[in-house]
Amino acid sequence: MKLGEGVEAAIHCAALLAGLEDDSTVPAAAMAAQFGLSPSYLLKHLKALTAAGLLESVPGPAGGYRLARPADSISLLDIVLAVEGPRPAFRCCEIRQRGPVKLPASAYVKPCGINTAMLRAEQAYRAALASERLSDIVSDYVAEADPRSVAAGRAFLAENRRPQKTVANPQD
Amino acid sequence: MKLGEGVEAAIHCAALLAGLEDDSTVPAAAMAAQFGLSPSYLLKHLKALTAAGLLESVPGPAGGYRLARPADSISLLDIVLAVEGPRPAFRCCEIRQRGPVKLPASAYVKPCGINTAMLRAEQAYRAALASERLSDIVSDYVAEADPRSVAAGRAFLAENRRPQKTVANPQD
Repeated sequence: MKLGEGVEAAIHCAALLAGLEDDSTVPAAAMAAQFGLSPSYLLKHLKALTAAGLLESVPGPAGGYRLARPADSISLLDIVLAVEGPRPAFRCCEIRQRGPVKLPASAYVKPCGINTAMLRAEQAYRAALASERLSDIVSDYVAEADPRSVAAGRAFLAENRRPQKTVANPQD
Repeated sequence: MKLGEGVEAAIHCAALLAGLEDDSTVPAAAMAAQFGLSPSYLLKHLKALTAAGLLESVPGPAGGYRLARPADSISLLDIVLAVEGPRPAFRCCEIRQRGPVKLPASAYVKPCGINTAMLRAEQAYRAALASERLSDIVSDYVAEADPRSVAAGRAFLAENRRPQKTVANPQD
């Protein structure tokens, strides 16, 4: 079984952006350099996270990415599904219906028990991924990772964050 | 996320072989025909199940496959790992270490928290797959599937099983 490689990049970027303390953004190119990834490769996954409502993309000279909602309402399941799509890992091809002895379609109204059992296990996987919150991953990282690594992450954000100009509320 | 297509074929074959009531075997070609699969494709997966100790392969004119151990000691996890290999679905490439700011290796002695969280969820998936026993899948199938489908499965076994000749115990 296999998750696409984009999942690692997507989680690392989301964890990095969780460290922004205001509405600043970080450009995709800076994150690509930080993780040694090609910018176009990373952009594909950042766009998927944006389409899923996990990130916001701000255009223009101060543009970049930031979280679209608080890190405690983003789970690893949200990120995995954004990058990998919603389909289950086990994809039933109904091979039970392919044999030389053809039964009427009415014999296959009930779902295949093998598919049902595989999906039951996958629900457990998804529930476990849903219980892993981005905010917990970040706070565990700050508490437990090597202090040099934590400091390097903060230095990255200080150097690459793009503050947003305050826009007057148009309704004022 | 994705499991290989061979998993469905492997589980169906194991469930079919669980219906053998003695030490008979079923040839790979018959199972391939039953599930509309190419014999060489199926053979690859049957060999993986055999290498993992889940099936036994009997050579010769009465040859074929049978379960190597009772169906209640074979789980969906056993079958998935036999077909897909033991590696976790999430494969950490240590992209945290790739950035332009190089820290000494000692800063990365602790495992990446993102990898740890993903593996924690995968353990839940594996535990759920391990709790799904082949014997339960078969008994649920017999109890709940359409009786025509159950009868067709039994007819397949009656037609394709290859009884083994009794061999005198060489120690007698």
